[in-house]
Amino acid sequence: MKFCINDIEDILKIISDRVTGDPNLEIRGLSSFDDAGPHDLTFACDPGYLSRINETRAGAILVPDSFAQEPGGSINCVLLKTENPKLSFFRILEVFYPEKPLVPHIHPSAVFGCDFTPGKGIRVDANVVIGDNVVFGDHVHVMANGVIGDGCILGDHTVIKPNVTLMSGSILGRHVIIHPGSVIGSDGFGFAQNAGTHEKLVHTGHVEIGNHVEIGACNTIDRGTLGVTCLGNGVKTDNLVHIAHNVKIGENTLVVAQVGIAGSTCIGKNVIIAGKAGISGHLTIGDSAIIGPYAGVSKDVPAKQIVSGIPHMPHKIWLKVSNIIPRLPEMRKKLFSFERRLTDLESKSEKME
Amino acid sequence: MKFCINDIEDILKIISDRVTGDPNLEIRGLSSFDDAGPHDLTFACDPGYLSRINETRAGAILVPDSFAQEPGGSINCVLLKTENPKLSFFRILEVFYPEKPLVPHIHPSAVFGCDFTPGKGIRVDANVVIGDNVVFGDHVHVMANGVIGDGCILGDHTVIKPNVTLMSGSILGRHVIIHPGSVIGSDGFGFAQNAGTHEKLVHTGHVEIGNHVEIGACNTIDRGTLGVTCLGNGVKTDNLVHIAHNVKIGENTLVVAQVGIAGSTCIGKNVIIAGKAGISGHLTIGDSAIIGPYAGVSKDVPAKQIVSGIPHMPHKIWLKVSNIIPRLPEMRKKLFSFERRLTDLESKSEKME
Amino acid sequence: MKFCINDIEDILKIISDRVTGDPNLEIRGLSSFDDAGPHDLTFACDPGYLSRINETRAGAILVPDSFAQEPGGSINCVLLKTENPKLSFFRILEVFYPEKPLVPHIHPSAVFGCDFTPGKGIRVDANVVIGDNVVFGDHVHVMANGVIGDGCILGDHTVIKPNVTLMSGSILGRHVIIHPGSVIGSDGFGFAQNAGTHEKLVHTGHVEIGNHVEIGACNTIDRGTLGVTCLGNGVKTDNLVHIAHNVKIGENTLVVAQVGIAGSTCIGKNVIIAGKAGISGHLTIGDSAIIGPYAGVSKDVPAKQIVSGIPHMPHKIWLKVSNIIPRLPEMRKKLFSFERRLTDLESKSEKME
Repeated sequence: MKFCINDIEDILKIISDRVTGDPNLEIRGLSSFDDAGPHDLTFACDPGYLSRINETRAGAILVPDSFAQEPGGSINCVLLKTENPKLSFFRILEVFYPEKPLVPHIHPSAVFGCDFTPGKGIRVDANVVIGDNVVFGDHVHVMANGVIGDGCILGDHTVIKPNVTLMSGSILGRHVIIHPGSVIGSDGFGFAQNAGTHEKLVHTGHVEIGNHVEIGACNTIDRGTLGVTCLGNGVKTDNLVHIAHNVKIGENTLVVAQVGIAGSTCIGKNVIIAGKAGISGHLTIGDSAIIGPYAGVSKDVPAKQIVSGIPHMPHKIWLKVSNIIPRLPEMRKKLFSFERRLTDLESKSEKME
Repeated sequence: MKFCINDIEDILKIISDRVTGDPNLEIRGLSSFDDAGPHDLTFACDPGYLSRINETRAGAILVPDSFAQEPGGSINCVLLKTENPKLSFFRILEVFYPEKPLVPHIHPSAVFGCDFTPGKGIRVDANVVIGDNVVFGDHVHVMANGVIGDGCILGDHTVIKPNVTLMSGSILGRHVIIHPGSVIGSDGFGFAQNAGTHEKLVHTGHVEIGNHVEIGACNTIDRGTLGVTCLGNGVKTDNLVHIAHNVKIGENTLVVAQVGIAGSTCIGKNVIIAGKAGISGHLTIGDSAIIGPYAGVSKDVPAKQIVSGIPHMPHKIWLKVSNIIPRLPEMRKKLFSFERRLTDLESKSEKME
Repeated sequence: MKFCINDIEDILKIISDRVTGDPNLEIRGLSSFDDAGPHDLTFACDPGYLSRINETRAGAILVPDSFAQEPGGSINCVLLKTENPKLSFFRILEVFYPEKPLVPHIHPSAVFGCDFTPGKGIRVDANVVIGDNVVFGDHVHVMANGVIGDGCILGDHTVIKPNVTLMSGSILGRHVIIHPGSVIGSDGFGFAQNAGTHEKLVHTGHVEIGNHVEIGACNTIDRGTLGVTCLGNGVKTDNLVHIAHNVKIGENTLVVAQVGIAGSTCIGKNVIIAGKAGISGHLTIGDSAIIGPYAGVSKDVPAKQIVSGIPHMPHKIWLKVSNIIPRLPEMRKKLFSFERRLTDLESKSEKME
């Protein structure tokens, strides 16, 4: 797919911004900061990129409104100022790479159970298997080899990518995306001890997922023996994330790759959980908290707190701790040298007495 | 699904227990401790819940035989005493949410290889693909889009959930459950070095899984180049667990989510491996050992030992260590202040001499 | 499958080696060092096994050319010397367990999109779904329930195991193996912040995988909004590995199970990343570096450096640090005892003045 637009003006129509430099520059492509060439548009929003703005070979750059060229600086390329350069960039990208419109279709190989309730304009691809009493909103798209269990409800515009499994009773909101290989509504890890063995419990709970939620590839989101596992509107999870039975996650929380959240833990709104962090069961993580990468969280975290490390601690302390850990051998040496010096001083002091 | 039973007596028939309080209470539902209402039955077994027993709004609570109401305490709800409240609760739950009986059926879209040996009353759902020389015991159920490789053997009452892959030669016992997305019998990560490249080895090993084993969602259990990867009876694994080639796991061991066990390691019986722990290859973990969450185990662990931390250490030490790690900055400060005090003392001492 | 060859000579024809001991020994099987019996061939290459060579009951052992029997030692079995015992062993194993030749076939249940370009001798198993504009090289094999997205290109002899998903535009080289459940080309975890929500970005990037690459089970390899996620020739990944958008991995690098590599990080050639390690985004890991298990890498790692620990540090230091961490409680005690001794000395010193 190639595209070419004649001048900056066409882009300006989309983002209505102020421009510095040659307004007749021909933009032939969009590219990342480091890969861009003289006829590409790119963007720079964080200080790291803005400080290196002379290093990109891009012909035009979207920058924040607040960006001020250095007095003696000479930026040769076209600058387009906008409130949110990343967002503007991707809005332009969408114009050039428009999403394919969903063509309604039911592939003949798809298998349906009893009492299916379809919305308008749905698409069900090859080898999809749909159970009994399933409800689809309008424009739902289930891609190849997906399995939708009995009693599932999918909201309007929800997209199920290939090889996904929704177990029975899962409820998904509108504009949800589930990436390939993910499993929603598998039985939680809950057993009753009985004479040395672990007895299987019946799982009557289910998973509920809000609107505009995006679930990464190969996630596992369990249901409980009772009650609901619940992801609020706007939650986004990365790949290989584990969310145990009866977990609740508040709106717009981000869960990065390989995070694990144990049973019945309650995560607030606007939380960020960085990659590989683990959160124990039955905890409460407050709104807008940030959990650092690899953190091992075994106690509640108050709202807005930033924590890191194993065990987790305030992030500012972890920054110091992580500088000290590699110096432990020298600290230990020093400690032993102090022992000798103390003993010396003590024997001298005794002699003096 | 709704249910309503008229009085406590009906429940007593199931669990035959002693009851305190109004025997005519109408129970309309079963619920968790915190969600229960005045016509719900719940249970409390550990001290955390028993100490908060006045906080649940449940109409009736299953409690341990040993539970003694506080002298001045006033528990308004019905108490039902039983040896194992959790187990009793779930036995009652099973009565109200009975498992659907398996209806034998072979979906016409299922694909079979040569020489298939089916047991009585099996069910094979849509788009299942079964290889050559496969043997199913009685009442086996393979759910939609499962793939069963050549020469696999599945014991009676085994259930394969959707989108599972069993590679060739996998042997599963009776009453095994494999949750969606799991992969059994993939090739291990074993290569021979040859002139700077990693040469693929033929994998002739296979995976054997005992009776009453439950494998979580998106697990990967590898086979070796030679020999057997073996999970004993009653083993339960949570989601996203990795079990490498030639690992052996003893009976009734629990493996929590996102654990990784490297090649040829031998895990004993009744072991608990908490979430995200990693165990290096060629190790031996003794019976009834407990591995803490996030632990990094790089040496053998004797039977019954409880270990935690990276590197792993006795859990009691880890509890102390994990309290000290956040205090390392103040320890370091103190150490440096001692240096000054020592130098001061030494110079004074020299002057005195 | 059984095999029996009459004497060592047959094996020698394959590996052309020097032999010590009875050349007429009948070899009836191949086995691992610890499982082998008196008519089995095994191998020993590293010092751990070579020092225990009298412990195996194997009838014949492949050993390195450099292996010297101890002067007074009495090794009863047949020794076969070879440059690379492991490689020789597996070459013999391949003779006895020959790979089944690929029988070209298109299963009638496979579903194809428009404009499919097949190579010679391809095999497409049951319920495979192939999108539009897909190109297969010669002898490509897609196993049951695989999904190949629009515009994918698969090189000669590439094997896609069951339940794999290749999203649109993925390009795979020759002799690639993708193990079951893996997802190639899922959307990266990239959003634009907009008024407190995380806005979905269009993903126009794709994944490119070189020749002789092997991807383990349940991996997730993302594509970016722009540009390429790239794995070089000979890269091997273990199970449950996460590789984020725009990551580049150099030739022959090994990535062990449950590793996570964040967005835009660049990994060199011949790197080894041990199990469960995590690497932050936008970093550079130099050629032939080694990242230890569970390491948390948050800064660049120079070529050939060996690092371990959280935070990562030179491996030699980590070995010391990991010995000290369990001793932190005694270090802290010592520190407090020093405080008392210092105060004592100081008060004595004051009195003296």
